[in-house]
Amino acid sequence: MLIKDVSLLHSGQLVSGRDILIEEGRIARVGRGLKDESGDEAIDGHGKLAIPGLINCHTHLAMTLLRGYADDMELMPWLQEKIWPLEARLTEEDIRWGVKLGCLEQIRHGITCYNDMYYHPDTTAQATREMGLRAFISGVVFDMKPELLGQVEPFIRRWKSDPLITPAVGPHAAYTCSEETLLKAKEIADRHNCMIHIHLSETRSEVDGFLLSKGMSPVEYLDSLGLLGPRLAAVHCVWLSPEDCFLLAERGANAVTCPVSNLKLTSGIAPLNVMLQAGVNVCLGTDGASSNNNLNLFQEMKVGAITQKNAYHTPAAFTADQIWGMATENARQAFRLDLGLHQGALADLSLIDLKKPWLCPQSNMVSHLVYSMSGGVDSTIVNGKVLMNGGIIPGEKEILERAQERFLHLTS
Amino acid sequence: MLIKDVSLLHSGQLVSGRDILIEEGRIARVGRGLKDESGDEAIDGHGKLAIPGLINCHTHLAMTLLRGYADDMELMPWLQEKIWPLEARLTEEDIRWGVKLGCLEQIRHGITCYNDMYYHPDTTAQATREMGLRAFISGVVFDMKPELLGQVEPFIRRWKSDPLITPAVGPHAAYTCSEETLLKAKEIADRHNCMIHIHLSETRSEVDGFLLSKGMSPVEYLDSLGLLGPRLAAVHCVWLSPEDCFLLAERGANAVTCPVSNLKLTSGIAPLNVMLQAGVNVCLGTDGASSNNNLNLFQEMKVGAITQKNAYHTPAAFTADQIWGMATENARQAFRLDLGLHQGALADLSLIDLKKPWLCPQSNMVSHLVYSMSGGVDSTIVNGKVLMNGGIIPGEKEILERAQERFLHLTS
Repeated sequence: MLIKDVSLLHSGQLVSGRDILIEEGRIARVGRGLKDESGDEAIDGHGKLAIPGLINCHTHLAMTLLRGYADDMELMPWLQEKIWPLEARLTEEDIRWGVKLGCLEQIRHGITCYNDMYYHPDTTAQATREMGLRAFISGVVFDMKPELLGQVEPFIRRWKSDPLITPAVGPHAAYTCSEETLLKAKEIADRHNCMIHIHLSETRSEVDGFLLSKGMSPVEYLDSLGLLGPRLAAVHCVWLSPEDCFLLAERGANAVTCPVSNLKLTSGIAPLNVMLQAGVNVCLGTDGASSNNNLNLFQEMKVGAITQKNAYHTPAAFTADQIWGMATENARQAFRLDLGLHQGALADLSLIDLKKPWLCPQSNMVSHLVYSMSGGVDSTIVNGKVLMNGGIIPGEKEILERAQERFLHLTS
Repeated sequence: MLIKDVSLLHSGQLVSGRDILIEEGRIARVGRGLKDESGDEAIDGHGKLAIPGLINCHTHLAMTLLRGYADDMELMPWLQEKIWPLEARLTEEDIRWGVKLGCLEQIRHGITCYNDMYYHPDTTAQATREMGLRAFISGVVFDMKPELLGQVEPFIRRWKSDPLITPAVGPHAAYTCSEETLLKAKEIADRHNCMIHIHLSETRSEVDGFLLSKGMSPVEYLDSLGLLGPRLAAVHCVWLSPEDCFLLAERGANAVTCPVSNLKLTSGIAPLNVMLQAGVNVCLGTDGASSNNNLNLFQEMKVGAITQKNAYHTPAAFTADQIWGMATENARQAFRLDLGLHQGALADLSLIDLKKPWLCPQSNMVSHLVYSMSGGVDSTIVNGKVLMNGGIIPGEKEILERAQERFLHLTS
């Protein structure tokens, strides 16, 4: 497949008139005047910007079905009266259509890969497969549902050879999993060389609880169990001490920040400036749609950058390039994906319509993508397969209808 | 003109199958099975949500041309090295295309009216007229350019009978205008019964400066000059004491908050919860694109609500309904516009495509508009005239090209 006459970013500068040749799910060449022998219809890239696919480094995709169901409530009533009772009734069919709805939305925002943690990971994996996205899917584990731990390893075995789905283990958090559970999760991850996906130091009370009961922070506690390492995706990391930041960096662990969710649930503002200074590999995620309420990484970049500026009292504190790097290179490093618009990279990319007023004038395109982007992803391609072209996603209407049906059934 | 089979919000609930009949720039009827005698082609509203036009209560629209030109810099170098030198070179032609670019963007975000403050207000008014938006346009006044004060009244006289443009006076701020200038601005506003548009208590150093030099806050200072009243739009109001809030409320003055700009320029987080409790009429604006960097009021609502929640340490602190009310009813009250989907109201409205994944499931539409909206404004109508239909704005391509030319010329 050939994308003709498209624009690219080279060191932040817009260059136009390039062709991208895609063969067997990878970028075969990028240059001018390329020819395609495949016989596939070419995609007209004129007036469009190609960017590597974005990775949403933390979500609970099935919860897209719960978007807007409950907002603006105190945390415990929200969980106890609204989210948990509804989650208890979620069927695999609900999860299937919630995931497909979330995939639709991510495709529309140029997200080609996501990192998930939820119940029924097989259903999530199957629905994602049908939608064509790439995903790291963790079977969630916590002590209130002891049966979950036993289900993770069979799930990993079933999916570990899949070209698009990478299974992982998702111990929910240090405060919901016993030491034994955390060590078993680590054993499984070690045995299968897979990632560990965990919530970490999200709220002040979580951190205070560990300091009082164990005399160490949740980060130090996980380190004492040997969980900190390059295969760890530690999500939120809002309440980190400088020592926690250095420890995460030293161990090569990956942190995922979700700025919108942290504000909406009033968890706080993560010390991203300190984390980056300490050398932590910080990535970006949207969290689930019930605490965001969308899956828009461009918005996440903007909110992340401007809240850091304000928290550190200077507009220079966090730049568009820094947050763009977190959303792109850092995420690729965490998930070890060869993504980018270079020869040999995975053909996961999107095309953005440059003829939108919010991208004009074409002064500083990275600034526009971070601070001004308000839609206009025209096409999304994963593993060389076109999932959206010219704003059209085949089957979208049915998914929206089925998701609506499931929501009404669930809440009736 | 008839909009057929559209959905509306009634007390926050979605109702469908309604028709909206528009005659002579006003909504003539809303109901079922309406007939249109005009012979105009009907607009198909099926699968779309009609909302009253949004009012962007503070911007410097011509500065849309400077979007992305300079970000992530300390305030004074940003102004002194980047913004002011460029502004000094801005011609009327630059302003004309900057304003048209900003109008395009606002039309795409469902904004039908905006409140502007900038140089060359006649050019802004003329360009806005050509684009078909409604606007309150202030000639800016400050002491560094003493000639500006004398230009305001003639500008007001030229435009005061215009059906779409309402002229106003815009003393820039209490720290850039002498007492004499502020009093003259008030005189002009009194004489023409027009609004006063001013920046107020934006930064901590501004407020500290007044407390040290005058023994009162900027709000108290303006009150001592008689400027606080229902015709005042006081923009930013980040650093208000509770007493300032009560004073604004008591005088019936309108406050305009710009949450994104306040974070990006690190001015801080306005005490919206206190302001609403005190009874201040708080409205919402985007500020100029050089400090935001877009003109998207939906994004402004989300950032405003979630930062308030976090600042007051509870998700219940600020609800979607509250910020939606600020963006709609409060703005209408400030600018005394009879807007809404009721008989006799101005026909300023937009249609939003409900078949977008971020609006699904259709659980709580106000929540979706505030927290999840990521584009999909399909049509925008001002004063009964269709400015965008099905995502098409006639002449958009030329405006984008001309804005790009002006930017390159300006920065070459």
